[in-house]
Amino acid sequence: MVVITKTDATPGQIDAIVNRIEGVGLKAQVSTGEQRTVIGVIGDKTLLGDIPLESMSGVERTMPITAPYKLASRQFRDESTVIAVNGTKIGGRKLTVMAGPCAVESTEQIVTIAHLVKKAGAGFIRGGAFKPRTGPYSFQGFGLEALKMLVTAKEETGLGIVTEVLTPNEVELVGDYTDIFQLGTRNMTNFYLLREVGRAKKPVILKRGMASTIEEWLLAAEYILSEGNPDVILCERGIRTFETHTRNTLDLNAVPAIHELSHLPIIVDPSHGTGIRSLVCDMTKASVAAGADGLLLEVHHDPDHSMTGDGAQSLFPEQFETLIKELKPIAIAVGREI
Amino acid sequence: MVVITKTDATPGQIDAIVNRIEGVGLKAQVSTGEQRTVIGVIGDKTLLGDIPLESMSGVERTMPITAPYKLASRQFRDESTVIAVNGTKIGGRKLTVMAGPCAVESTEQIVTIAHLVKKAGAGFIRGGAFKPRTGPYSFQGFGLEALKMLVTAKEETGLGIVTEVLTPNEVELVGDYTDIFQLGTRNMTNFYLLREVGRAKKPVILKRGMASTIEEWLLAAEYILSEGNPDVILCERGIRTFETHTRNTLDLNAVPAIHELSHLPIIVDPSHGTGIRSLVCDMTKASVAAGADGLLLEVHHDPDHSMTGDGAQSLFPEQFETLIKELKPIAIAVGREI
Amino acid sequence: MVVITKTDATPGQIDAIVNRIEGVGLKAQVSTGEQRTVIGVIGDKTLLGDIPLESMSGVERTMPITAPYKLASRQFRDESTVIAVNGTKIGGRKLTVMAGPCAVESTEQIVTIAHLVKKAGAGFIRGGAFKPRTGPYSFQGFGLEALKMLVTAKEETGLGIVTEVLTPNEVELVGDYTDIFQLGTRNMTNFYLLREVGRAKKPVILKRGMASTIEEWLLAAEYILSEGNPDVILCERGIRTFETHTRNTLDLNAVPAIHELSHLPIIVDPSHGTGIRSLVCDMTKASVAAGADGLLLEVHHDPDHSMTGDGAQSLFPEQFETLIKELKPIAIAVGREI
Amino acid sequence: MVVITKTDATPGQIDAIVNRIEGVGLKAQVSTGEQRTVIGVIGDKTLLGDIPLESMSGVERTMPITAPYKLASRQFRDESTVIAVNGTKIGGRKLTVMAGPCAVESTEQIVTIAHLVKKAGAGFIRGGAFKPRTGPYSFQGFGLEALKMLVTAKEETGLGIVTEVLTPNEVELVGDYTDIFQLGTRNMTNFYLLREVGRAKKPVILKRGMASTIEEWLLAAEYILSEGNPDVILCERGIRTFETHTRNTLDLNAVPAIHELSHLPIIVDPSHGTGIRSLVCDMTKASVAAGADGLLLEVHHDPDHSMTGDGAQSLFPEQFETLIKELKPIAIAVGREI
Repeated sequence: MVVITKTDATPGQIDAIVNRIEGVGLKAQVSTGEQRTVIGVIGDKTLLGDIPLESMSGVERTMPITAPYKLASRQFRDESTVIAVNGTKIGGRKLTVMAGPCAVESTEQIVTIAHLVKKAGAGFIRGGAFKPRTGPYSFQGFGLEALKMLVTAKEETGLGIVTEVLTPNEVELVGDYTDIFQLGTRNMTNFYLLREVGRAKKPVILKRGMASTIEEWLLAAEYILSEGNPDVILCERGIRTFETHTRNTLDLNAVPAIHELSHLPIIVDPSHGTGIRSLVCDMTKASVAAGADGLLLEVHHDPDHSMTGDGAQSLFPEQFETLIKELKPIAIAVGREI
Repeated sequence: MVVITKTDATPGQIDAIVNRIEGVGLKAQVSTGEQRTVIGVIGDKTLLGDIPLESMSGVERTMPITAPYKLASRQFRDESTVIAVNGTKIGGRKLTVMAGPCAVESTEQIVTIAHLVKKAGAGFIRGGAFKPRTGPYSFQGFGLEALKMLVTAKEETGLGIVTEVLTPNEVELVGDYTDIFQLGTRNMTNFYLLREVGRAKKPVILKRGMASTIEEWLLAAEYILSEGNPDVILCERGIRTFETHTRNTLDLNAVPAIHELSHLPIIVDPSHGTGIRSLVCDMTKASVAAGADGLLLEVHHDPDHSMTGDGAQSLFPEQFETLIKELKPIAIAVGREI
Repeated sequence: MVVITKTDATPGQIDAIVNRIEGVGLKAQVSTGEQRTVIGVIGDKTLLGDIPLESMSGVERTMPITAPYKLASRQFRDESTVIAVNGTKIGGRKLTVMAGPCAVESTEQIVTIAHLVKKAGAGFIRGGAFKPRTGPYSFQGFGLEALKMLVTAKEETGLGIVTEVLTPNEVELVGDYTDIFQLGTRNMTNFYLLREVGRAKKPVILKRGMASTIEEWLLAAEYILSEGNPDVILCERGIRTFETHTRNTLDLNAVPAIHELSHLPIIVDPSHGTGIRSLVCDMTKASVAAGADGLLLEVHHDPDHSMTGDGAQSLFPEQFETLIKELKPIAIAVGREI
Repeated sequence: MVVITKTDATPGQIDAIVNRIEGVGLKAQVSTGEQRTVIGVIGDKTLLGDIPLESMSGVERTMPITAPYKLASRQFRDESTVIAVNGTKIGGRKLTVMAGPCAVESTEQIVTIAHLVKKAGAGFIRGGAFKPRTGPYSFQGFGLEALKMLVTAKEETGLGIVTEVLTPNEVELVGDYTDIFQLGTRNMTNFYLLREVGRAKKPVILKRGMASTIEEWLLAAEYILSEGNPDVILCERGIRTFETHTRNTLDLNAVPAIHELSHLPIIVDPSHGTGIRSLVCDMTKASVAAGADGLLLEVHHDPDHSMTGDGAQSLFPEQFETLIKELKPIAIAVGREI
């Protein structure tokens, strides 16, 4: 259930409502919008008994939320969430572009690429410091050293940092360096990790599990939101199907579906979504046309020598630059800019 | 193997090459482009023995085709296929729009919708006369009567007709009325039907099987091409995955992938690809941005009373009209027009 | 809806009930069991209006059928269907074993294999005369000649014949030679073919579509049943999933699920269900343990020279013989024999 | 690469081989079988240069391992792994039965069920203390209290304990109470957790990820093995497909496939693999017939009041008891006992 307050509700009235809810053992989740405050009531509603929340001062109305996810649902918050980070806004009119290599391989590599993607129009540099790998003998990332290289790249370009965190114990460490946490497809159901980034104070990109339904994905987001971190960015990166020509099947249906079901921003990763460089540009255009709030793209100036074997899906910097230009009219056509 | 002729090869030279190929029991498939003629050699290449095709008059070079499909492959024909039908061209710069109801329900219905979609910019009216239904007790279409209603709609609007054919025995009948045959997802592996439309003289829309890989889809196209009908239009309509929120998972990766692997045009059906009206417009935009050569859309002026239960995925005529307008700048952005 | 008659209902009473149903434009489907007759009422039930079927002579009670398939449902017929063919019974206590090569390649081949599988305990020889192939350039079967070879094998061994029919036009031809029609996975939604074998007088093995749900599969069976042919044998042969190690994922869950939902017998094809010879025997044992009513197995005495490339999943005759012996105690353990 | 020692190789010779391998910066993994010791060489083989391992004392031969997983492969260790725990052996002739409720709900519940499943023939009591749940508002298990209840159940019955661990930080805690760690389907790619249980001294049940290929699953096992814990038990629990009738699609193909590819034992969980109580018994029989080394089954004496909503797939104790009896002849038929 959600309590929607009047536009002129006072802080005191809101506190009183929260106290009433928590007084019976329920949890109250306050979401402050530009117009009004909405209070989510989480837990067994029968505990409310006869308490007339509707008639409390400052309350406009209450509303049931039918979806299993509550705070993530569009019913809970009609206004789309816009997340401010490193001087940019994610989820607003302007699309967010995050680009960089699969893994941070050296200071020179990450700084070189950061300059190239910055010049082309990116707002964030992405790169893996801690890499989740299918097998134990593959390159697992340079860890802390790579985090520091990312900071160097940020200092030189002003780009924000996006990098993956793999386990609850490293949330604090990674959080000391990154602007945005990335949670990968293999960790979408790592519920302790979801909770831990939910207690952190930085935005979280939550990639869709490769076999996760849209509902399960929103429930994973709910784990983060329910811990108090409102800044979740969903990322469609392809799902696993029977098709073997492409690495994954990029499910762009998810973009308008998420916009309908949730107020959270959704970005798309066409690099993993196809796994094939020659398909990435067309699918990036499709992502923007479908309504994506941003893009996460692999760009590498020397993909044949990438240390993770993901070079085959990385764009060359010149391709990336051309792509961003070609996206402009498409973004405008769907009421956005890039 | 493919024999590529010189740009100034004479018909006599080409005949000689064909005779040489067929003389050893192989099949020669001639494809005449604007610049040059390409001759596919189908069958066991060892039959050629020492015959020096490369040194025959008019031959520029020969080339192996590595894909299991031959005539459908981009290696066989580098130039994209453009299909002329009912005064329009499919596969060229201008996108083809096919729209209409799931099923033809009455003359009034189909003529009304035809006028509406024509006005909005469609080039073809689509509507089912013979409907493939999951169960035997569902409405199976009005058959011949519906074909006649489609002709009335064509006469009144000038729109070309697209309608489905379900079985080899009805190819001739349906061919007497339609401009383009549609083969549905449930018939992509109905090989007798593929062969039969391969012998017909009208273009064929070949929808992707709901669990078919891209390679299997191109092999199904090869069945049609190998019978002599070069006019195959592929149609992505969503594949079956674990996701249940949408009716199917529209695999737009297939659009650039097909353009890379094949010279055949590919259109997209976002209506079946999503199954949800509110997602159709965004996914249509994404389809155009991904490089689709055309669109197949369900439009119904009274979807709540649709006889097939597919109303939930049909656009209202006014939505369709707005959509076509909104597609224009996206088409231009990707070097096309609509 | 189903009308269940009294155990002592007379033919005249049953006719009267049928006439009453058909008199309002509905279809009456009569199923005669050992104990009682059940009459399915197919169509729009509101046409019955106030007609009190329950109070007619010979009627014990009426019952709604909630599943979308009616005649195929366990609600329609509680007693499991047993199909008598070529002196054997399918669906009874004794398991039916059908074995043979993927394709009939020569009289010598099929007769040799028939003798071998007969000796090991098979009741039917299987072999493709008309082969559905993914591409047009693959071997498509020897057609009529192969049918005649199957008859020779039957004459020499007494085994019944199972062979695939691909298109409505060939149902009569194939029916002149075979004992049981096989409908392959690629034709499960070939509705004209389903109807045509529904009008034939021979049993039909209906393989599950590779991306068909259990419900869609039963609806396909309903097409056959609704045309008057009650002798449908379902065949699980593996579904298409993301797993690439095996050719298909054999879904044995379907065996007990079908027994619960339907009265029709279900057999299993572990050869296609795995695609790997070394897995076939274990999965055959699992099929019997899961409750399968029979088995469809590829056996070839020279699989390395199989003309269809399916040799990799064919058992050697000696493996097959050992397998049948090893199945005996498992069959007994689940209340069956082989 | 694997170094296979002679049957009479001495500890000193083995140490010398290990030192030689580690001396060039590679990792040596020693696996001691009943007959001989096998030493895995992990890392970049070119580091070995000209070192003639083959000619060292005690070496019989060396062998490349082609699979991406090494220690998990059958090539590395031909002999099937048998794991001794709590007085029983897993992977030997006798099947291991693990049974109990989805979650530990009270001392009375777990002790009651433990007595019932012990009487029926189980060797382990299973029950969730820490529960991974799709959404944050669902019951998450009683944690430490539940672990203590499991110990009470062990003390009263002698049954070993199987319970899930969700995060690296809790491996030590859970390890203080359980006999076998369970890693669930949602954590198969939680690589830090895999490594952590790899450093623990207790056996690990590794459930297959719901969208994981067999190869990815074995690579996950490799993470555990490569940390030094040789006692990994794989558990097939159903994969995610398009089929919605069952909760998952139990992939029994995986049982003989794993036996072929790996020396590790594999057990089956038909409760999650079907999600439907009425299908569990038949699929358990199928699992044994397919060659499973053990079973993981949900049993609850009052499933309608289960706290996790998984009651629908739990067997009643009397069903479980009957099932175990019915499994006996099937186990014998495949050369096992239960």
